Amino acid sequence: MADPDRPKTIRWVGDLAGHVELIDQTALPVEFRVLACRTVESVWQAIREMKIRGAPAIGIAAAMGVVLGVRDVADEASVRTALRKTCEYLASARPTAVNPAWAMRRMEACASRLMGQGLEVIKVGLLEEAKAILVEDAATCRAIGESGKHLIADGEGVMTHCNAGALATAEYGTALACVYAAHAEGKKFTVYATETRPLLQGARLTAWELVQAGIDVTVICDSAAAQVMKEHKVSVVITGADRVAANGDTANKIGTYGMALLSQAHDVPFYVAAPGSTIDLQTPSGEAIKIEQRPPEEVSRGFGLRTIPDGAACYNPAFDVTPARLIHGLITEKGVIHPVCEERVREFFGIPACIRPKRD
Amino acid sequence: MADPDRPKTIRWVGDLAGHVELIDQTALPVEFRVLACRTVESVWQAIREMKIRGAPAIGIAAAMGVVLGVRDVADEASVRTALRKTCEYLASARPTAVNPAWAMRRMEACASRLMGQGLEVIKVGLLEEAKAILVEDAATCRAIGESGKHLIADGEGVMTHCNAGALATAEYGTALACVYAAHAEGKKFTVYATETRPLLQGARLTAWELVQAGIDVTVICDSAAAQVMKEHKVSVVITGADRVAANGDTANKIGTYGMALLSQAHDVPFYVAAPGSTIDLQTPSGEAIKIEQRPPEEVSRGFGLRTIPDGAACYNPAFDVTPARLIHGLITEKGVIHPVCEERVREFFGIPACIRPKRD
Repeated sequence: MADPDRPKTIRWVGDLAGHVELIDQTALPVEFRVLACRTVESVWQAIREMKIRGAPAIGIAAAMGVVLGVRDVADEASVRTALRKTCEYLASARPTAVNPAWAMRRMEACASRLMGQGLEVIKVGLLEEAKAILVEDAATCRAIGESGKHLIADGEGVMTHCNAGALATAEYGTALACVYAAHAEGKKFTVYATETRPLLQGARLTAWELVQAGIDVTVICDSAAAQVMKEHKVSVVITGADRVAANGDTANKIGTYGMALLSQAHDVPFYVAAPGSTIDLQTPSGEAIKIEQRPPEEVSRGFGLRTIPDGAACYNPAFDVTPARLIHGLITEKGVIHPVCEERVREFFGIPACIRPKRD
Repeated sequence: MADPDRPKTIRWVGDLAGHVELIDQTALPVEFRVLACRTVESVWQAIREMKIRGAPAIGIAAAMGVVLGVRDVADEASVRTALRKTCEYLASARPTAVNPAWAMRRMEACASRLMGQGLEVIKVGLLEEAKAILVEDAATCRAIGESGKHLIADGEGVMTHCNAGALATAEYGTALACVYAAHAEGKKFTVYATETRPLLQGARLTAWELVQAGIDVTVICDSAAAQVMKEHKVSVVITGADRVAANGDTANKIGTYGMALLSQAHDVPFYVAAPGSTIDLQTPSGEAIKIEQRPPEEVSRGFGLRTIPDGAACYNPAFDVTPARLIHGLITEKGVIHPVCEERVREFFGIPACIRPKRD
């Protein structure tokens, strides 16, 4: 993943007059297409249409979107208004992941620090902050991989859902960071990736990433997860997270909760991998997490074909919440939080990092 | 369902020189296409390619295929050989459902009874037997509906997986027979149909049937089943079966086993609806059931699009086995078998029908 030629999920190209460049994830695996976003609106749209997705990645996109929303402001007095407006707008693109809110709070704090130093300093400072969020995310992901790699056993299978890989983050991923780190140690294993209807992030993105990295990957229908566990093909399940509540309840891609229940039924430990920026102490439990409802057409017309007859309704929640009691551990950049409960989650923010994030 | 104009899943058209006509289920819901099968090979292909599917329906198709395989035999001495060859060939189309084997045993027994009565009598007798299997299946399905309709509560939701409806049987269905019968009583409820990847029988077929019948249906991704249960949207789950072993273990569409586990976790009773012809006393338990592996392209190219990158493997079991302990009851034409255990399943074959199958 340290290959500099490797395509990046998202990056800022050029100086303050530059733009955001991201891999259009809706086109994979058929086409590798890079998208340039030069306006806040185009960033909003890329997030909404899931051209970029994954909680950490859309956090970075939101931070860079803030830069785009502020860079044309004509005087320092207008910065705060433009910033607030941009943040509100970008937050409306998708409601469940907490990382955009976290990233935008960082951008606002950065602007506050720089107020009074002149417009150019603020603008350049915001760009540097957005770039720092990206660099830190990559380092955090690498640390998550180090925290979780021991959970993958040589010769055993790993199951994951959706895509919590390089494409969901600056690079390396969260759940897949553990996979990449275990692979780097020379372990041999197969990743069972559920295809993840309706948008097939597992089939399209996780499989694509792992094939590129030379890691064995087998795609299964979401409905085959129980059977694969019954056949003892996997010894651990690791997924990502869109928001972890203070008590450890975790919102993630629809199907995660069911997978956690199936893991419990088969005595397969179920882990969630996520950076601290995905843990939201303001949300006491999963009940307080707003679940995004996505358009029914993702299910009924998802492949450009009519797969559901007119007259039938569709229910398409994008996420579900896995209660903390089903999660064996939270794999973070500071180590594995276990057991998953409010006390341990809060400790995460109070204790010094036990694993130092390494830079590339 | 008594509407004579309503398209039929499968029927025999004309006299002994006639042919099998069936709804091409791969074209629904986009197109309503009727397929004529005039050779054993075309019946085999229709079963293999799932143009007709559903355990009872492919049982009927196999019986009618036997007629096609025998009708050109030139002398009585060759009937038995042709019949055996045809049965072996048709059995190879799909291995998991037991109904084709059951139907073909009936056809063989019929031929044995008629031996010595002349070639024409045997051929016509076999056609009559195949038609009788169809008529009896319709009556059986209606009786299943009567057995199970009380399980659906007015104002509550029902979940089902795949298609165990009119399209899976002569008419009326097994799981959906309960839905149709409850609807006929005036109960209001919503059916939550999982789309059922890879071939989308829930999205395409169950939704199509229910829309036609004026019954509320909401399609969900397979991965949303747990969330729908958690939201208390359904008070019962009813699926069909491809083979029920002597101890009650049930093979059905991949995803059924997981759905049964999720039902247990949410205290939602999980029922299997199936005719006696699907119960196979020769199979002691689920471990003895051969699970059909379907081509990976159903997952990776299922919509004519490449959804999985080259280099990624696919695992595509068509069925899974739900252990009897997870099944609250087997809804049969003779009533509900409960608890589901070998003793009760064997009783099914020894006791007189407590609900008489009603003819239309």
